Amino acid sequence: MTILFSRFTTRLIFLLFCASFSRAEAQDEDALMIRKIHEEALANGKAYSWLTTLCTQHGGRIAGSDAYLGAANFGRQILGSLPGVQAALQDCDASYWKRGPKEEVFIVKADGSRMRLRALSLGNSVGTGGQEIKAEVVEVKNLDEVEALGKEGIKGKIVFFNRPMDPAQIRTFSAYGGAVDQRVYGPSKASEYGAVAALVRSMTTKTDTFPHTGVTVYKDQVVPVPGIAIATADAELLSEALKTGAVTVSLKTDCQVMGLRPAPTVVGEWKGTSHAEEIILVGGHLDSWDVGQGAHDDGSGCMQSVEVLRILQSVGYQPKRTLRCVLFSNEENGLAGGRTYAEKSTEAGEFHLAAIESDAGGFSPRGFSFESDTSKFKMYYKKVSNWLPLLESYGIAFETGGSGADIGPLKTQKGLLIGLRPDSQRYFDFHHTEDDRIENVNQRELSLGAAAMASLVYLIDKYGLK
Amino acid sequence: MTILFSRFTTRLIFLLFCASFSRAEAQDEDALMIRKIHEEALANGKAYSWLTTLCTQHGGRIAGSDAYLGAANFGRQILGSLPGVQAALQDCDASYWKRGPKEEVFIVKADGSRMRLRALSLGNSVGTGGQEIKAEVVEVKNLDEVEALGKEGIKGKIVFFNRPMDPAQIRTFSAYGGAVDQRVYGPSKASEYGAVAALVRSMTTKTDTFPHTGVTVYKDQVVPVPGIAIATADAELLSEALKTGAVTVSLKTDCQVMGLRPAPTVVGEWKGTSHAEEIILVGGHLDSWDVGQGAHDDGSGCMQSVEVLRILQSVGYQPKRTLRCVLFSNEENGLAGGRTYAEKSTEAGEFHLAAIESDAGGFSPRGFSFESDTSKFKMYYKKVSNWLPLLESYGIAFETGGSGADIGPLKTQKGLLIGLRPDSQRYFDFHHTEDDRIENVNQRELSLGAAAMASLVYLIDKYGLK
Repeated sequence: MTILFSRFTTRLIFLLFCASFSRAEAQDEDALMIRKIHEEALANGKAYSWLTTLCTQHGGRIAGSDAYLGAANFGRQILGSLPGVQAALQDCDASYWKRGPKEEVFIVKADGSRMRLRALSLGNSVGTGGQEIKAEVVEVKNLDEVEALGKEGIKGKIVFFNRPMDPAQIRTFSAYGGAVDQRVYGPSKASEYGAVAALVRSMTTKTDTFPHTGVTVYKDQVVPVPGIAIATADAELLSEALKTGAVTVSLKTDCQVMGLRPAPTVVGEWKGTSHAEEIILVGGHLDSWDVGQGAHDDGSGCMQSVEVLRILQSVGYQPKRTLRCVLFSNEENGLAGGRTYAEKSTEAGEFHLAAIESDAGGFSPRGFSFESDTSKFKMYYKKVSNWLPLLESYGIAFETGGSGADIGPLKTQKGLLIGLRPDSQRYFDFHHTEDDRIENVNQRELSLGAAAMASLVYLIDKYGLK
Repeated sequence: MTILFSRFTTRLIFLLFCASFSRAEAQDEDALMIRKIHEEALANGKAYSWLTTLCTQHGGRIAGSDAYLGAANFGRQILGSLPGVQAALQDCDASYWKRGPKEEVFIVKADGSRMRLRALSLGNSVGTGGQEIKAEVVEVKNLDEVEALGKEGIKGKIVFFNRPMDPAQIRTFSAYGGAVDQRVYGPSKASEYGAVAALVRSMTTKTDTFPHTGVTVYKDQVVPVPGIAIATADAELLSEALKTGAVTVSLKTDCQVMGLRPAPTVVGEWKGTSHAEEIILVGGHLDSWDVGQGAHDDGSGCMQSVEVLRILQSVGYQPKRTLRCVLFSNEENGLAGGRTYAEKSTEAGEFHLAAIESDAGGFSPRGFSFESDTSKFKMYYKKVSNWLPLLESYGIAFETGGSGADIGPLKTQKGLLIGLRPDSQRYFDFHHTEDDRIENVNQRELSLGAAAMASLVYLIDKYGLK
């Protein structure tokens, strides 16, 4: 075949050559930028020292508490310290639940002697008002068993939900998803059948001595009864005791729902130069449970999100789109922060092109999970998948799936919602316990999560999602 | 186009269909087996409880010590408890180095007051025989600086090697590789130029208060001088003090090399049914430094290796090839175990088709690294790469690169050498310190490493490497 080049063909080939050349060049430039982002995070990172302050000065920051207000001011302060970032508090009211000083759960033996169980009232649970509730225990593995036992089996008793998280699941969040209905709906279901209280096996695959709290929700019309988590080691012990005969438990708590309180969400905005109307959000939730310091859940995600802006500034990147760092309020007990933020944003006619949430702990990043409530999702996912080779050498994989609770309400804006997916093996060792503390966060792992987020923000900002 | 099938074509299509069907079926079978392996490791794993015994009963098991002999017996016992596994001790002599009870390093101030530095003699170092050495300190960043300062700058002084591990490296082992020459060769180099001792900044990216020991090696003909690691926090402090003027350090140690002692390697063998002459080895090193419990380094790798055999038995797999679990002696201080094992194996005409070492901590597995000293390596790597889709969903990636120190001497047998690559971010928080303890190993992470190894052993055994 004779090859004849027309002037048009020659020009086309030249253009194709240039395009492929500039694509290669752009990839080199991107690889270099992503390398710089990671080096900045590891060598000069601030996330860990900010998190140390957040944990030690504003630990146990349940939304509505004074500790939460302190944390919100701290969040605004560090965001505001970044050049060109406007930081503000967004009004939000949250239902404030308060644990009382007394929480006692005992197995009462036949001879009257008592054995204490390590216990924590569930968030949002009613208390006993300091009065003793003493009743026989009935163990169940799931909500259906309560229905099956019916009022005759349940009435006047304490229902003990004792289905373990499945340790054989590779992803601990899947195991959590398969067990947490007992905590969220167990006490309400027990009450429907006349129970006087509910004990719930703590949500962890470990056999340990930490009770893990977390939210419980009562159905409308149901008379709330106390819901209390007990440590898995004590759940085993109680279950063993039940094999030998009837067991009576005595409990006293004095937690209560205090009503609505101010619990502002913190918003830091860094305006884009040319597509300022498209927002790229990074965030986590600033509130935690009242026990521990909320280090992994979710101080880590918040401080990583602030760090994303700091890193991009440090490496000299100037975003075209508007970058927003949002530290949401009240994720643990109602999601008021996420809902309010999305509502106000949509009212204001804003568009979030992308939102990345980090709320799975400050562990080594393993990837991102993507979702969107639009037919454009295929296009979005194809676009981001092009960038995977740039991130793979940092141990990052992509998958489709859930993103984050706080950014969930932004779905209606039809942008791309993204969850950072860190290694999940240790998360439920600490989740919602006294042990969720800064000592259990590794600085390098935390920093790498921030670097992964910053890298993705850089790529989305630079190339968009079309 | 009319389609006409000859009988030959029809037959070919049928065969292709069968082949692709059976390949798909085999893949399903493999996926199922790998799932079972992971579930067994997570739900019924023994590695963590064995590791707890090894750490708490036989911690600080430097080769040649009584603790090491206890560990070797324990290793033989658990291997021997597995049905069909022949467990034995393989004779090996190791140079036994012993830390004395006194180790003191002080900064001596102008007014005579002393400030203690957290210090540990380096393994294999000579001591001061309990006598005080007191001298001015000269700080250097590398071995070349010692040469540049020459005898006039070094003679009579204590050389302080203070080049930090580079925190900006993504992989901590790369950062270690870039700094550890100071520890291994620093004291010897300092002595060549007339120094009376050497202090070495501990090998970790963290600023912490744990001195990290590790081997030092003296060149032949060099008069050995004491080599001592100091905690990074104290290295910073000493370096700051040196900025304001001359600093004198006083030190006393009484460690010594005790000569050769028995330190057997533990070998457990599970004979294959049809290709018994091809050996697949899994292993780690049983010795540790004398401080801490040798939990991550390398109790984890040893107990994972025993666990590989247990898991495969539990899921009902019968290997065609011979599986060997080897718990090597003396990796930390001479590699006598690895060398002796390879020598005896080669003398006996054995062939290790593959050897997998786990010696990078009991953290979440991220992949495997492959190497081989043969032109067959391309074929090997192509073969294993076919299996990657089966392991990717467990977060496993493949790469070419180093395997493990203990299996290194097997290279001459021309098989495939493989290193388990766990997440490396936390490794140097604990490495060679008092803090390398069972409390810092996560059971699920440890188990997943064993499951990844067992999965790869299963695939190599089932399909070979041709």
